[in-house]
Amino acid sequence: MSKPLVIIGAGGHAKVLMDILSRQGRKVIAYAAPEQATYNTMFTQLSWLRRDKEILKYSTDEIQLVNAIGSMPYQLLRSKLFDMFKQHGYEFASIVCESALISPSVKLGEGVQILSRAVINADTTIAANCIINTGTIIEHDCQIGRHNHCAPSATLCGGVTTADFVHVGTGANIIEQLSIGEGSIIGAGTTITQHVEKNTIVYSAKNHLKKRE
Amino acid sequence: MSKPLVIIGAGGHAKVLMDILSRQGRKVIAYAAPEQATYNTMFTQLSWLRRDKEILKYSTDEIQLVNAIGSMPYQLLRSKLFDMFKQHGYEFASIVCESALISPSVKLGEGVQILSRAVINADTTIAANCIINTGTIIEHDCQIGRHNHCAPSATLCGGVTTADFVHVGTGANIIEQLSIGEGSIIGAGTTITQHVEKNTIVYSAKNHLKKRE
Amino acid sequence: MSKPLVIIGAGGHAKVLMDILSRQGRKVIAYAAPEQATYNTMFTQLSWLRRDKEILKYSTDEIQLVNAIGSMPYQLLRSKLFDMFKQHGYEFASIVCESALISPSVKLGEGVQILSRAVINADTTIAANCIINTGTIIEHDCQIGRHNHCAPSATLCGGVTTADFVHVGTGANIIEQLSIGEGSIIGAGTTITQHVEKNTIVYSAKNHLKKRE
Repeated sequence: MSKPLVIIGAGGHAKVLMDILSRQGRKVIAYAAPEQATYNTMFTQLSWLRRDKEILKYSTDEIQLVNAIGSMPYQLLRSKLFDMFKQHGYEFASIVCESALISPSVKLGEGVQILSRAVINADTTIAANCIINTGTIIEHDCQIGRHNHCAPSATLCGGVTTADFVHVGTGANIIEQLSIGEGSIIGAGTTITQHVEKNTIVYSAKNHLKKRE
Repeated sequence: MSKPLVIIGAGGHAKVLMDILSRQGRKVIAYAAPEQATYNTMFTQLSWLRRDKEILKYSTDEIQLVNAIGSMPYQLLRSKLFDMFKQHGYEFASIVCESALISPSVKLGEGVQILSRAVINADTTIAANCIINTGTIIEHDCQIGRHNHCAPSATLCGGVTTADFVHVGTGANIIEQLSIGEGSIIGAGTTITQHVEKNTIVYSAKNHLKKRE
Repeated sequence: MSKPLVIIGAGGHAKVLMDILSRQGRKVIAYAAPEQATYNTMFTQLSWLRRDKEILKYSTDEIQLVNAIGSMPYQLLRSKLFDMFKQHGYEFASIVCESALISPSVKLGEGVQILSRAVINADTTIAANCIINTGTIIEHDCQIGRHNHCAPSATLCGGVTTADFVHVGTGANIIEQLSIGEGSIIGAGTTITQHVEKNTIVYSAKNHLKKRE
């Protein structure tokens, strides 16, 4: 029923997605990456497209795309690829790991990726091209904007709203009812207890080091 | 076998509980809330009780109650309702999400709610009316007092003891063998490495903000 | 097919392991501990070996060992026992909780223990005698050294490398591509954003306390 997939990227995030797709028995036929992924048997069985534009040889009806570019702070490649291929008429597959727990009332935009053990509770909405990474918890009544990345083990409490292009770092926490402005970056391990304006970087106190005796 | 349920509250925590009850095929017949929950199809199929006291029209044999008042710091409504309806002779249902992992040696008090993906390890005891929220981990040999809320992604290491009315915030960590006094609040994202006396609020260092260039 | 097990230790970590072994139907025949574990029915059914050296009465072909000594910072008992019994020719059983999610490309060393709800993603390697504790997430392409303990709810992002004898505390986070030197201790709740040299203790800012009014 579902179309064969072409995956864009062959790095770490791509490998994690391939594990999920493989468990789900979904058919991946090709990957696009500047270097051939010779190190990983998951990729060596696929056709290699050296340039993203080679994807255009597939008709938009024939395949769905998987955006396997990892999303790091300050980096827009992932959203640019999404927008470019949407303009060409392609559809992005949503990937929901079978170990994720998602309320029936949750709404997921196009191309959303929900990885292992994520939990998304009632009446939350996740807009297009988001990564909800391993073990992330998004509570009830949240509104997550487009092109967000909630990194592994992030926790968003009930009623949190994020605009587009927000990065919530690994293990970060956002308490109830707060909003995070467009393009803001919540540092790894940071706990947010106030609204965050757009284009703001929030990070927590420095660590202390000492030598073991 | 189990009695029909009447749920007190219709907010975010109530929705999360209703998702679990619905998956478990448990019968909920009514909800009590000051405003009618018209926004959510989970509630529109139930009888609406405008005031908590309307619950008294059900006999104590006929139903069990679900305490769906969320537990926030400084807020006692949840425990007051529990005590009041206990005095009237009602029983509160325990709710254990099927995705939670609980050692057979764990003891749960009346009305305890264990939400998605919580883990509770060997020889831990959870007293009455606690919420162990999404993704919370409580290790072996812990003693959790009455009316506690362990918010999402909190982690309590082995042998932790909490008194009554303790709030452990989202993503907070408590290391081994510590005790937390009655009525204390562990701030979201805070890591506890020393005993905490009663009625103490513990929070961690402030965040730093900068603008993205 | 698998050999009967003798478990070294009868404390909290041993109880957590016994829960997993019991769910998996694995046969444990004896435990070694200085005091008899009378408090726990999981242990009272087993033969009690008062001293570790009594294990030597079993032939190395006959049994496998389970290292149930918990791993705390500054404590080497766990690794010493492992090395001593390896020198005697014994084999340590690996224990992988059925609720853990582990990529098929992950490689696990001898005696590795993966507890409830841990997630280990593609192309990660975990060396011998590590504990990957409850709810810990280890992302793709990590290299975890021997005798590491990743405490509950720790999160290691993609491409992290740890040397031997590293302790990653409860709820700690390590961001992408970092390396942690031999014998270093990452404090509970600490977020690591830079490489950590060997024998270094890293901890985060102190908490603030105030009294509730």
